[in-house]
This record gives sequence, C-alpha cells and structure tokens, in this order.
Amino acid sequence: MSAVMTGFTNTSFKLAARPFGLPKDSDWLREQTPVPAPGDGELLVKVRYISLDPAMRGWMNEGKSYIRPVAIGEVMRAGALGEVIASNHPDFAVGDIVEGMLGVQKYAISNGRGLSRIDPTLAPLPSFLNALGMPGMTGYFGLLDVGQPKAGETVVVSAAAGAVGQVVGQTAKILGCKVVGIAGGQDKCDFVVNELGFDACIDYKRGPIFPGLAKHCPEGIDVYFDNVGGDILDAVMARLRLHARIVLCGAISQYNNTTPIQGPKNYLSLLVNRARMQGIVVFDWADRYPEAVTAISGWMREGRYKSREDIVPGLDAFPETLLKLFRGENFGKLIIEVT
Amino acid sequence: MSAVMTGFTNTSFKLAARPFGLPKDSDWLREQTPVPAPGDGELLVKVRYISLDPAMRGWMNEGKSYIRPVAIGEVMRAGALGEVIASNHPDFAVGDIVEGMLGVQKYAISNGRGLSRIDPTLAPLPSFLNALGMPGMTGYFGLLDVGQPKAGETVVVSAAAGAVGQVVGQTAKILGCKVVGIAGGQDKCDFVVNELGFDACIDYKRGPIFPGLAKHCPEGIDVYFDNVGGDILDAVMARLRLHARIVLCGAISQYNNTTPIQGPKNYLSLLVNRARMQGIVVFDWADRYPEAVTAISGWMREGRYKSREDIVPGLDAFPETLLKLFRGENFGKLIIEVT
Repeated sequence: MSAVMTGFTNTSFKLAARPFGLPKDSDWLREQTPVPAPGDGELLVKVRYISLDPAMRGWMNEGKSYIRPVAIGEVMRAGALGEVIASNHPDFAVGDIVEGMLGVQKYAISNGRGLSRIDPTLAPLPSFLNALGMPGMTGYFGLLDVGQPKAGETVVVSAAAGAVGQVVGQTAKILGCKVVGIAGGQDKCDFVVNELGFDACIDYKRGPIFPGLAKHCPEGIDVYFDNVGGDILDAVMARLRLHARIVLCGAISQYNNTTPIQGPKNYLSLLVNRARMQGIVVFDWADRYPEAVTAISGWMREGRYKSREDIVPGLDAFPETLLKLFRGENFGKLIIEVT
Repeated sequence: MSAVMTGFTNTSFKLAARPFGLPKDSDWLREQTPVPAPGDGELLVKVRYISLDPAMRGWMNEGKSYIRPVAIGEVMRAGALGEVIASNHPDFAVGDIVEGMLGVQKYAISNGRGLSRIDPTLAPLPSFLNALGMPGMTGYFGLLDVGQPKAGETVVVSAAAGAVGQVVGQTAKILGCKVVGIAGGQDKCDFVVNELGFDACIDYKRGPIFPGLAKHCPEGIDVYFDNVGGDILDAVMARLRLHARIVLCGAISQYNNTTPIQGPKNYLSLLVNRARMQGIVVFDWADRYPEAVTAISGWMREGRYKSREDIVPGLDAFPETLLKLFRGENFGKLIIEVT
C-alpha cells in the first residue's frame, strides 16, 4: 500500500504503558509522523481543541468497561474538534467544523463515524467541548433523566466548577431547584455562586464537608450528582432525603488509586431513605444530543447560562495538563488548544 | 391509676443496653409482670408466634433510621401474631387472630393501631409471619416494584433460604426468570433448588462465590435482591448486566460490625452498566399488602409456592435464638413459638 502524503507532519500522543496510579511521562509516546491524504470515504481534520476529561483515566486501564480500553501503541482517545482540510466523504466538506473522538493529535483521519458537524454560529468553539459537548450532554441528561429534580428540591453537585458540574448546577437552577456545589478552593466556590448563580458552594479543601451540607441542605438532599466518589459521596449519603436520587457520573477521587476502590460506606442510607443510585454513560443519549444543544445554546444566548473553560495552549503540554484534572487544578472545562 | 388485672403473668424481653456488635445476654432484661385488663379502645392479645428478623438488630441502635429505635427499658419490638383474648376495641373480637408489632412478650395490650386481623383458613398460622407476613411483602413488592424483572432475565438473591429469599426466588420463578440463590451450606442450597425450584444455588461457605456466579449467570445478572451486603454484594456487582437493578433490602453481614460498614467497592459497576441500586422499606407498601397476600396464598394453595419456617419453642430462648439469624444458623423463617 502506498499512501499519498499531504506534506503535513502529525504530532500524536500514544499510550506507551498502562499507568499504575497517576499517569507518568513514560506512559506516553510522543510521535511525529507524516500525514497521509484521506482515502476513499475518509476525511482529514486539522484538530484545534482537545477535551481533557476524567473519563480518559478509565480508558487507559485494561478490562471490560462501557468502552474498550485504548490499546498500547494507539493514539490516546479524546474528544476534540477541528476543521476539515481534505475530504473524500460525502457528508463532510472542506471548511466544516467537526467534533468527535479525534484523539490527542494535531491531524486526524476519520471515516466519519461518530463525527458530527457543528454550527460555529451557535457559540464559541470551545463551548462545543464543554456545555455543548460531551460534558454538557452528560450533565443535562444525567440530571434530567436520572436525577429527575423537581422545582424546590435541593440538588448537590460535586466538582461543581468543572465541566459537568457547571451544566448540572445551572440546569437545576433554571428548573427552580436550590443548588449547592462542592468544589476545591475559594475561587471555584466564588465562581459557581457569583457567576453561575448557585445558592451555595462548599469548599472541600477547607475540611470535612458535612457541616456545610447540614447548613445549606437543612431538609436533606433530594438529588446528588456525583463526579467524585470517596469521602464526599460518604458525606452526602449521610444527608439524603427520603426518595433521594444519586446520579453516579464519575469518581475522580478513585481513578488513580493504587489500592482498591473506596466503596461508599454510608450506602445503607439508600435503604433507610428508599433512595436510589444510578449510573450514567452519556453515549446512551446520543440520539437526543440535539435536544440538549438547542436548550443550552438557547439559554447561553439569553445570558442565563455561562460556561467557563480552562484552555491550555500547545499539544506538547498534554501529559502535564492531564494531571491538572486529577489534582483539581483546572478551573472550568480543561481544553488543550492545538497551536 | 388502678388498673384492673387479668390474673395472667406476662413475660417480656426489654432492651437493657444498646449492643456493641452481636447482642449479649446482658443487653436484655427478662421481666415478669402481671397482665392488666385492656382499657377503653384496647385489646389484649395472647401471643403465639414471634418473628425474628435481621431488621431487629438495626432497631436496637440509636440514631435516625426509617423507624425510631427501641428505647432502653422498652419491650423489644418484633412482629408477632396471636389470639385476642379480651377486647374493648370495636374492630377486634375475642377469638380473632391478629398480626402486628406485638413485641417479644407473651401478652400484649394494643390500641389496634398497626394491627391486622388475619384469616387462618388461608394458610397455616406461621405463614403469616413468613410468606404472608412482613418478609413476604418485602420480597414480593421489592422484587416486583423495584427489581422489575422480566421473563427470561436472571435474578440473584442472597440469604436465599431465608424468609425474604424464599419469596423473592419463588416469585421470580413464577414470573419466568432464571433464579440463582446464594445461601450458606449445602442443605440450604439443596432446599432452594429441590424444594423451591430455583435454577441453581451457590454455597458461600465453600469459598468465593464469583466462580459460581460466572457459571450460573453466563450473561450477567439483571436483578440482584440483596439481603446481606459485604463481599457477596461486591462479587455480584462485578457481574452486573447492562441496566441491572439491585434491590437493597438489607445487609445482615454488616449489622453487628464493630468497625465501619464495608461499602460496596465495586459500586462503579453501576456506572459502567448504567445500573441502579435502590433501597426498600416494606412499610411503604402497607396499603397494598392484601394484593400480595391474595397472590401468594393463591400460589400456595395451587402448590406452586412453598414456605419453610424454623420454629423454635419457648420465649425464654429468645436471646440465643436471635443470634442464630446473625450466624446464618436458621433454616427458613426464624420464629419463636410461645409455649
């Protein structure tokens, strides 16, 4: 097979080894390779923004999950968006802006599967990896379909200043709920209260969160959207209200464990309170994404909805930037801008 | 106040101290007192059968739960049934057989609240503390309303030979499910398979149950009815099928812990499998008990439904008999016959 080449040079990050605990530099292989022209039915995308998500840590592990693991030697999977610069695909034209699992690289060849064209007039491009992208879809459908909050109920969300947390909290406010965030640091807490309109936010870095939950959720918690697991999940479980719903979206506190996962030791609160805990995976709502994009972009244009990104320039910063997520150092949706 | 006395002598077990770990003899106060005649609107019941349930351990602890704790010095709460031997209550007549929270005692005065008349022609009396009593209602409504099994699905139930387990497994079989029990010992396993018609049963005393689950649930577990928690819950969670439902009914493995509760360390399987875990408390279905009694007693008369009790004679055996539950030594619904 002799491929026609484009003259461009790709930079990609491939998985070199499965991490034990936090990913190390040696778990990555940075590679530079010539970019081939797209084949029949393929298109070539120049990647502009790459989404860094907690879920990526799970994709690096071996074993059965909701999606197959990234193979050793494979370009690291990541949501990203970019511009079509060459196309032999009937549905995509040069100049289209597309979003999908393009991976941690500068150029991506795609057969179009799982790729969607986005309308850049709706919102700034990075929003399509945030409120209008996977985190937005996760927060929107997880909250509405599984959390099922009713006006007047108390909704608590952890990683409140993160990509999913922003969407959950703002959507719950629009529904008429009382919203209490949990976040790390005064800056993030101030942001979700002052900028996003949450009713309160508890800084978990200042000490145990239970007193804050007791203060801000005097009647208990109706819906908890869990992005973190661990001690925070334990504390929330101790304050559930009758018939509470826990939306299990993630457990970032546990992803880099080198010891067994910490199970929620207050889980019998589910029994006492006839409460439920249910897991979600955003892909299950793929056919309804347009519904959420319409709703959220509408709220954004009306000024009722804000989205904050933490955009780091330069693909080479990828290994270090990913670690910011697990250290809670990002402030808003973490995105790499490919420069 | 001078009460009219009946000439009978009551024996009761009162809670003397809150147990730490397994209840000790010194946690009980056995008392003998004269039985007063019932006052206005009251009735007097001669207790015949007392139900011993895992939930009783929780009622002995201090703190908020789905029901207030038994107070120190109070007669221990227990479901029981007996015969009305005197009545000043318009709804109950001498000779009626009644069931309710009559407590661990020989004679009970009641104002009728929470007491129901039972029809002894429907089934043998002990059944009304078993398949037609609280355990039956728990298994029936928990399975149907929360587990929501469909014909052809795989249902797993722990403490399979226990009161709730028998009802869950037999009801699921009648619905057309594949039913796999988990029980302690070959006798119990043989019983649920050969007598109750379960498809298989895993003896947890023979070693880790995961290989058995893999063998008997090759496509995974759709519904798990959890009475035990602990390592068994962990193992089941590792084999959930997509959209599985866990009915959280109890956690007998954890009730006597002197260390913190063991949280389910595989709980992220709920996420991966978009599964849910939901707690139940039987009292929530109180207004629908007659529906279950009609269904189950009908199945019993048709010979499609069996119920096994482990009946221990003599109220004085109460402290030691209760411990059988927590050691897994009872075989079938544990009941004390007041002789």
